[in-house]
Amino acid sequence: MTQKARYTAAVESAIDKLHEEGRYRTFIDIERHRGQFPHAMWRRPDGTETEITVWCGNDYLGMGQHPVVLAAMHEALEATGAGSGGTRNISGTTVYHKRLEAELADLHRKEAALIFTSAYIANDATLSTLPKLLPGLIIYSDELNHASMIEGIRRNGGAKRVFRHNDVEHLRELLAADDPAAPKLIAFESIYSMDGDFGPIEAICDLADEFDALTYIDEVHAVGMYGPRGAGVAERDGLMGRIDIINGTLAKAYGVMGGYIASSAKMCDAIRSYAPGFIFTTSLPPAVAAGAAASVRHLKTDQDLRDKQQRHARILKARLKAMGLPIIDHGSHIVPVIVGDPVHCKQLSDMLLEDFGVYVQPINFPTVPRGTERLRFTPSPVHSPEMLDGLVRAMDNLWSQCALNRQELTA
Amino acid sequence: MTQKARYTAAVESAIDKLHEEGRYRTFIDIERHRGQFPHAMWRRPDGTETEITVWCGNDYLGMGQHPVVLAAMHEALEATGAGSGGTRNISGTTVYHKRLEAELADLHRKEAALIFTSAYIANDATLSTLPKLLPGLIIYSDELNHASMIEGIRRNGGAKRVFRHNDVEHLRELLAADDPAAPKLIAFESIYSMDGDFGPIEAICDLADEFDALTYIDEVHAVGMYGPRGAGVAERDGLMGRIDIINGTLAKAYGVMGGYIASSAKMCDAIRSYAPGFIFTTSLPPAVAAGAAASVRHLKTDQDLRDKQQRHARILKARLKAMGLPIIDHGSHIVPVIVGDPVHCKQLSDMLLEDFGVYVQPINFPTVPRGTERLRFTPSPVHSPEMLDGLVRAMDNLWSQCALNRQELTA
Repeated sequence: MTQKARYTAAVESAIDKLHEEGRYRTFIDIERHRGQFPHAMWRRPDGTETEITVWCGNDYLGMGQHPVVLAAMHEALEATGAGSGGTRNISGTTVYHKRLEAELADLHRKEAALIFTSAYIANDATLSTLPKLLPGLIIYSDELNHASMIEGIRRNGGAKRVFRHNDVEHLRELLAADDPAAPKLIAFESIYSMDGDFGPIEAICDLADEFDALTYIDEVHAVGMYGPRGAGVAERDGLMGRIDIINGTLAKAYGVMGGYIASSAKMCDAIRSYAPGFIFTTSLPPAVAAGAAASVRHLKTDQDLRDKQQRHARILKARLKAMGLPIIDHGSHIVPVIVGDPVHCKQLSDMLLEDFGVYVQPINFPTVPRGTERLRFTPSPVHSPEMLDGLVRAMDNLWSQCALNRQELTA
Repeated sequence: MTQKARYTAAVESAIDKLHEEGRYRTFIDIERHRGQFPHAMWRRPDGTETEITVWCGNDYLGMGQHPVVLAAMHEALEATGAGSGGTRNISGTTVYHKRLEAELADLHRKEAALIFTSAYIANDATLSTLPKLLPGLIIYSDELNHASMIEGIRRNGGAKRVFRHNDVEHLRELLAADDPAAPKLIAFESIYSMDGDFGPIEAICDLADEFDALTYIDEVHAVGMYGPRGAGVAERDGLMGRIDIINGTLAKAYGVMGGYIASSAKMCDAIRSYAPGFIFTTSLPPAVAAGAAASVRHLKTDQDLRDKQQRHARILKARLKAMGLPIIDHGSHIVPVIVGDPVHCKQLSDMLLEDFGVYVQPINFPTVPRGTERLRFTPSPVHSPEMLDGLVRAMDNLWSQCALNRQELTA
């Protein structure tokens, strides 16, 4: 075998491994229609189309079709063109970027905010740059932190300690075992998106005070949706002022694209100045920044939308529970139904799509641990009672058809 | 001093260091006006505004204001809304993403293409994932490769060899010194953006054949602008078929945002399946994908625009040379004028902006090596002869005023 053939074989075998484990990902090709979310058109590989309902999107509040967002984007596009034309430093800082950063700093009641092309890169770039700014920094990281945080923490080989998920006693042990003089940072999430459970924000802030650690929270699955102005769970719980660095996204509840951190002016200035993932990349298109700013501004006051989302999530959970389906309920807006096997999970997802027009992507390893493969529903304010009925009937039907386990009903 | 005060002091001292070295970056806040590129409004920190000409953008062909790009974006925004609503796997693959990937695969005559939120993350994610697919992979990297390639190559601590810039003899030595059976990849750029010089593509492909190595080329400063269909320098030189993985951007000559790789179907499938930076991030907004696809499609035929850019670059270089200014000329579209000191470089840039309405950002370390600080001009088809005159007069004036060195004129 030639070396070139060996390269091809190695790449093929990496793909085959995924097929064998039943976790090869097939992207579902859809087209959402503005004004009709969560409806969308599903285009099969053969080109045929079917109308479906999206039940797994992260546009949690339907802001991706909100008139204020679209108007802001059209307007910026018309006024200033398509891309920004450069990195933030080299001609790519516009008034739209500055306004968005001001909007976000105000949202989180911090001195400053810094936008990135995604929350993934905001986590990666910030967490990998902090050890450069604070030599000897030890990062304490929840074991279920998002891939982008893990990648950022690992990147430069700085000291890290991984604590068991949400286990503040374990975190305390790890903090106590290290040199009290060493700089420390605790990195965690407010809502872990795959189980929908909350991080123990107050207990972690208490530990941070006790051990003189900085706090870093990822609120990507909470911003827009929790707190009286949509600043997240830390705002809801009156803890925002105790967090040193807040990470958020503009691509989920805000419905557009991009990510950010909010922190002190000095911290944002230092990350801005030292993080390669911030410095060496083209800034967001002005129209994207304009749409995101409009969305953030709008959700500072639209409490109805937040209430409606929570109500729909509660209803869906209650109805799936009533049928004995194995759902996880931690009180957040995310509704995971555990299947526990990658092949079954994919089959259920395929049947929901083909037979019921319900689009919910199977969630497999490495996104969740093996054996906890699941369907993860994200009800939103734009899912009507009729759609909810349809989903519940489809799940009931499939669970019977496939003779899947139901939990004992404790009525 | 408390620990919290020490954190603040450490962050402050990192910022102070930049001030002391004269390389603290001040972002210039601008607003380009569609239809009037390269004109823009400069907004000072005090809120006052002045009209300027942008001479340092990477929207090399002015496609950011092209009607076909803007029409495609408005249309997609109207049809499908703002964001994509999810990662590529979880509801974030739309017909717009598929069309863009097909357009790019066709552009580079490859089986497939894979889009990322930026070319930065395309480099980082691909180069850090390849060692997982090809165990024992050694990456040979040009010493002047872009930060995103360096970050990707370093990320997982795989084997790497750095060869002196464009030095194929050095590369040969390094290749020859390693186990012939070890998998190898040579990573380099077609145009190095800070000097504007070309990589020795053919010689590197020859070495790759000789040593059974894969080839990875970053064409971000070339796509759209070189080659009969704008596929880059490798296309221009008839070498595209000899490159295994091509990296490109949609944010420079194509005027929008995003990045990609083009390669074999298997390779794209494997990167798609294994790269965290691809998997765990929201996909590009459909409107961005639509605008980028329209731009790529348009530039497959608009040779006039490419010719005009090259002509303007030649004229600017000839005129600056004629005045004895220390420019670097490697025959590409990029026009760097060496200043050699970060403080002078910043002062010149400030004076050009304040006194002449010429916006060119100073380029300092770490973007370029210390002692080679420069002003880097990017003439485009939308810079008129009058603007060119204005720039040349301004530079002449400043060079005299500041008693800066001129090269000996060899007429």
